[in-house]
Amino acid sequence: MVQATSLPRNEAGIAAAVETLQQRFGDQLQTGQAICEQHGHTTTWITNQAPDAVVFPTSADEVSEILQTCAEYGVPVIPFGTGTSLEGHVNAPAGGICIDMMRMDSIIAVHAEDLDVVVQPGVTREQLNTYLRDKGLFFPIDPGANASLGGMAATRASGTNAVRYGTMKDNVLALEAVMADGSVIRTAQRAKKSSAGYDLTRLLVGSEGTLGLITELTLKLQGIPEAIRSARCSFRSVDDACRAVMMTIQYGIPVARIELLDALSVRAANAYSGLDLPETPLLLLEFHGSDAGVVEQSEMFTSIAEEFGGFDAAATSTAEERNKLWQARHDMYWASLQLRPGAKGISTDVCVPISRLAECVGAARDKAESMGLMAPIVGHVGDGNFHALLLIDMDSGIERQKADDYVGWLNDLAISMDGTCTGEHGIGQGKRPYLQKELGETIRYMAAIKAALDPENIMNPGKILEM
Amino acid sequence: MVQATSLPRNEAGIAAAVETLQQRFGDQLQTGQAICEQHGHTTTWITNQAPDAVVFPTSADEVSEILQTCAEYGVPVIPFGTGTSLEGHVNAPAGGICIDMMRMDSIIAVHAEDLDVVVQPGVTREQLNTYLRDKGLFFPIDPGANASLGGMAATRASGTNAVRYGTMKDNVLALEAVMADGSVIRTAQRAKKSSAGYDLTRLLVGSEGTLGLITELTLKLQGIPEAIRSARCSFRSVDDACRAVMMTIQYGIPVARIELLDALSVRAANAYSGLDLPETPLLLLEFHGSDAGVVEQSEMFTSIAEEFGGFDAAATSTAEERNKLWQARHDMYWASLQLRPGAKGISTDVCVPISRLAECVGAARDKAESMGLMAPIVGHVGDGNFHALLLIDMDSGIERQKADDYVGWLNDLAISMDGTCTGEHGIGQGKRPYLQKELGETIRYMAAIKAALDPENIMNPGKILEM
Repeated sequence: MVQATSLPRNEAGIAAAVETLQQRFGDQLQTGQAICEQHGHTTTWITNQAPDAVVFPTSADEVSEILQTCAEYGVPVIPFGTGTSLEGHVNAPAGGICIDMMRMDSIIAVHAEDLDVVVQPGVTREQLNTYLRDKGLFFPIDPGANASLGGMAATRASGTNAVRYGTMKDNVLALEAVMADGSVIRTAQRAKKSSAGYDLTRLLVGSEGTLGLITELTLKLQGIPEAIRSARCSFRSVDDACRAVMMTIQYGIPVARIELLDALSVRAANAYSGLDLPETPLLLLEFHGSDAGVVEQSEMFTSIAEEFGGFDAAATSTAEERNKLWQARHDMYWASLQLRPGAKGISTDVCVPISRLAECVGAARDKAESMGLMAPIVGHVGDGNFHALLLIDMDSGIERQKADDYVGWLNDLAISMDGTCTGEHGIGQGKRPYLQKELGETIRYMAAIKAALDPENIMNPGKILEM
Repeated sequence: MVQATSLPRNEAGIAAAVETLQQRFGDQLQTGQAICEQHGHTTTWITNQAPDAVVFPTSADEVSEILQTCAEYGVPVIPFGTGTSLEGHVNAPAGGICIDMMRMDSIIAVHAEDLDVVVQPGVTREQLNTYLRDKGLFFPIDPGANASLGGMAATRASGTNAVRYGTMKDNVLALEAVMADGSVIRTAQRAKKSSAGYDLTRLLVGSEGTLGLITELTLKLQGIPEAIRSARCSFRSVDDACRAVMMTIQYGIPVARIELLDALSVRAANAYSGLDLPETPLLLLEFHGSDAGVVEQSEMFTSIAEEFGGFDAAATSTAEERNKLWQARHDMYWASLQLRPGAKGISTDVCVPISRLAECVGAARDKAESMGLMAPIVGHVGDGNFHALLLIDMDSGIERQKADDYVGWLNDLAISMDGTCTGEHGIGQGKRPYLQKELGETIRYMAAIKAALDPENIMNPGKILEM
């Protein structure tokens, strides 16, 4: 694992806060080593930094009480959802109190006529979609993991559907949040749009728990489309596939998903999911619309794909075939790990302007090969976002160093292409140096906002910013 | 006119800053009374508060120099575009330097493959769309006025197309801005999505020049659709029309525009634009898509409209007929003024959850009638946003008071319906008390951000916040 930097601990304050919270919350607070380590642990490759206690609030008022106690003693608070973040977001580098939000898991109100829903932060996206299904509605953001909606907002998550439906920033109408001083605020009303002052909703989305703790979300919903059609097409090269993507987007075909698997990923999917796809770069697509509309979209895509040498194209509107293909896509993480049993997967997350995508993906693959790294690539290519999953033997110092070098090299490349080091995973601890490279002096103003809203730096310290 | 509150003037600082800037900028700085008053004047109903000088920079570096001088002397800066804002945004309540951005009007780069464009803030939306037309691209946000793109971003503008394409918050990829200390920052790279730290792009969008001055914008573009179809349908009541809108949105029909005109507005349009529409509530729609797609959308809408008693429905894909109808919609402001020659139009701007729209519009109309106010209503009803245009004799103290009472009453009503006092016009000076009613304690955190980024309060003081 990569060593995370520790920050100075306020031992006396932590002891006092834990005691005060223990008296107030009883069994709702846990200090056992296993539970603390579990709450520092995520799918990250960064070493575990456990909190000193984990508290399980059931309401915004309880979160506010916890914040007031922690503010009084100057003790860090770290929010926790499903622990599926990737960059050390839930580590406790200065110790402190982890606030596990998963008991706040109520769906408070569905406003079907307004296409919105009010939820607590511990509701997961699958829980929400299961609840909504018989109402003919769905929440489109799908980062793969069955993450909590509070965590998805906090990291500005997106995933396969973002090309059509946007990211969390586009799908949160309003937030309730507890601020560093314990105040409970609402960022906006429930209207679909507003020009009412600073956009605190968007400021909190992606702030990774460093500015406020989300205790309620009002989310936009979509009607389940009349028809869903999926399609796939193989290509001779990543370059051809990326050009087909670019043309599809330029033509304004409203694809709901357009995903790239490189040849290595297809090999992994064939083996893991019992498929028989040509082991060359593959695009997987999904179209949402009317019965006629999805066929039209799918045919338009196929004719574009043919221009770029696409072959073995297939499309289907039946749920069974579609699910099989998308299940394989969703299982890519596990399928990729099987390419090298025992290895740990370290995911990159660059996002570049789509005109640079083919070049960036090609360079990423060539670099991995030249460094002797196995790194299957999948991408949300309609947005220019892709992940190379480095399969690393974490017991090998040489391999860990290579992985670190590769991540740094790829982030630098993306930034040089006017792209970002993180399309959807966030900064956490791991990407702080790259955020600096990407935005430079701009970070000073982020730090000024952080200092203004959290003067004692108790809100998830050591994340996003070097403070 | 409604009297705007003045703030204390820093006379010595203003004199020193004007002299320093005069020496540096020569003819690029003007202090004549006419030009200063013109730069305080907008289409607002709030009294003119002219700046002490107007400077016309041509680059971000010049804007930075101006800011450094004003910071040194503690002098307010007020950014100016086309002066089409409505809530006193460009007034100078403490005097100071108006920065007219209209000489920064270059289209810097079109990235057709990436569907984005980089522009200076003084480029207007019509200028941009004229430039883009032969590239098959367009920028969709259309607030009616031919506003500058910098101003549109600063006020989080939207308009008729927002139901499909979102508001400025959804269409700005990145900003370059000059901060209060004169630093020039970039908020983001050009990638389509990012999780790289706090969303300073969205924080600056809608901040009305109070946090930073926008000197460059990277904007998302759309491909000009293969087909555009417009439609209209009359209804017996506003309630029926609003229910048809709600159903259209719920069905997921991707309308590009869906606009309501109440009976009084239709009467005004008939008279002004030589139309012959039934003088009952009217919906005007536009559909973007493929040839087959727009016909399908339009037919789906028509069958929904029929369920709610819609009549005299018509649809066309020819540009000439379409333009005639939409020109009438765009001319509504002037048409409405002709209902009462010599009157001034005072526009409200509430936005409510669509389930409350019929009730809110109906109450707005009834209240105007009961107060003896003439107030035609038009609305971007797909978003729940509508404007009652109060036609007021500004020489009558009684009428001015009635207008003020009506605006307050309607804002309170919208807020009580979980809506906002401003869907797209912004807060400026005029809506500050209502922002307080709408978001309460949340304003404290806006003020903290303002104080952190602009500690001397020189950036467009007296707007959004009471500071």
